[in-house]
Amino acid sequence: MKLYDLSLSGNCHKVRLFAALTGAPVEIVPVDFLGGEHKSEPLIGMNPFGEIPVLVDGDVVLRDSQAILVYLARKHGGDAWLPTAAEPLARVMQWLSTAANNVQHGPADARLIDKFGYALDKAHALRVSAQLLAILDAHLATRDWLELGRPTIADIAVFPYVALAPEGGVSLEPWPNVRAWIGRIKALPGFVGMPGIE
Amino acid sequence: MKLYDLSLSGNCHKVRLFAALTGAPVEIVPVDFLGGEHKSEPLIGMNPFGEIPVLVDGDVVLRDSQAILVYLARKHGGDAWLPTAAEPLARVMQWLSTAANNVQHGPADARLIDKFGYALDKAHALRVSAQLLAILDAHLATRDWLELGRPTIADIAVFPYVALAPEGGVSLEPWPNVRAWIGRIKALPGFVGMPGIE
Repeated sequence: MKLYDLSLSGNCHKVRLFAALTGAPVEIVPVDFLGGEHKSEPLIGMNPFGEIPVLVDGDVVLRDSQAILVYLARKHGGDAWLPTAAEPLARVMQWLSTAANNVQHGPADARLIDKFGYALDKAHALRVSAQLLAILDAHLATRDWLELGRPTIADIAVFPYVALAPEGGVSLEPWPNVRAWIGRIKALPGFVGMPGIE
Repeated sequence: MKLYDLSLSGNCHKVRLFAALTGAPVEIVPVDFLGGEHKSEPLIGMNPFGEIPVLVDGDVVLRDSQAILVYLARKHGGDAWLPTAAEPLARVMQWLSTAANNVQHGPADARLIDKFGYALDKAHALRVSAQLLAILDAHLATRDWLELGRPTIADIAVFPYVALAPEGGVSLEPWPNVRAWIGRIKALPGFVGMPGIE
């Protein structure tokens, strides 16, 4: 499997981290993001949204970091990381939507603005971040993991941009339960970091 | 099962439509949205994000329209609507992320601004809508359904706010393949509409 990747991307890190945790055989193909390689062929043909990561496994071409986590979990992670029964699958799915929406448009957008100069609405990103972190911290007050009492792809999908939030000017100091959860993820056997997540 | 619902919400309509198509026994509980019922107990306790729909099935409480579709599909829809093998599940998942992200922050946000007076960035919503509709139209040029050659919850998740796009000032005239796909969804046995989708 080939992962079209950018080392600084939290969305790519989700996939690299999950591959490291599960031993999924993912070959990293660095993308020249600053040169706009993801907006040109062949990558734009693989993902017309012009985003990375993109995963290629034989004839299977997948965009979207959440969909790639689902694929790897079903192929290499086993039921522990993504069960398929109605209730546990839906419980995990709630957080995959949160990752695609609130995490992306909260801490991830705040970081894009501060670190990469994107012309996005910083006040909006800070409001979304504050709501998300308050909800996460309350949720994690009585739980070690987001759902099912064990690490699932819900945790992996939400983790990188929450851990990178300070790079977007979003402090994690007010959120001790979030910080403890980040520590638990970092302690998982096989954990790998990225720039900004040691 | 109880669905906490707003008749004008496209996110709620996804669930009502899927229940109608599959015969899932969903009881509608109208929420006083203008009165802020979803921001107060007990609903805010069921979904701290303060959004609807919320589904309650015995002890199971689920937020997020995509997660609710996943739950209903696994309980009542069968493998046709949501397969669990790695590739087809991930293919559907790509569009659940698109629904949570691009559809929400494109045509759905444009409609929130025009129809309900939300203070969101209209120019941004129009840019996201234009990119999404161009990608959808190209994707549907060679396919009847978003993935797997048949209707899945990918179609149901993306459908309502695309069909409602004109209510946010986003014309579907330039996108014949999107309009044909909307027609195919409306022709599914058991289809139900909502205000703005006849």
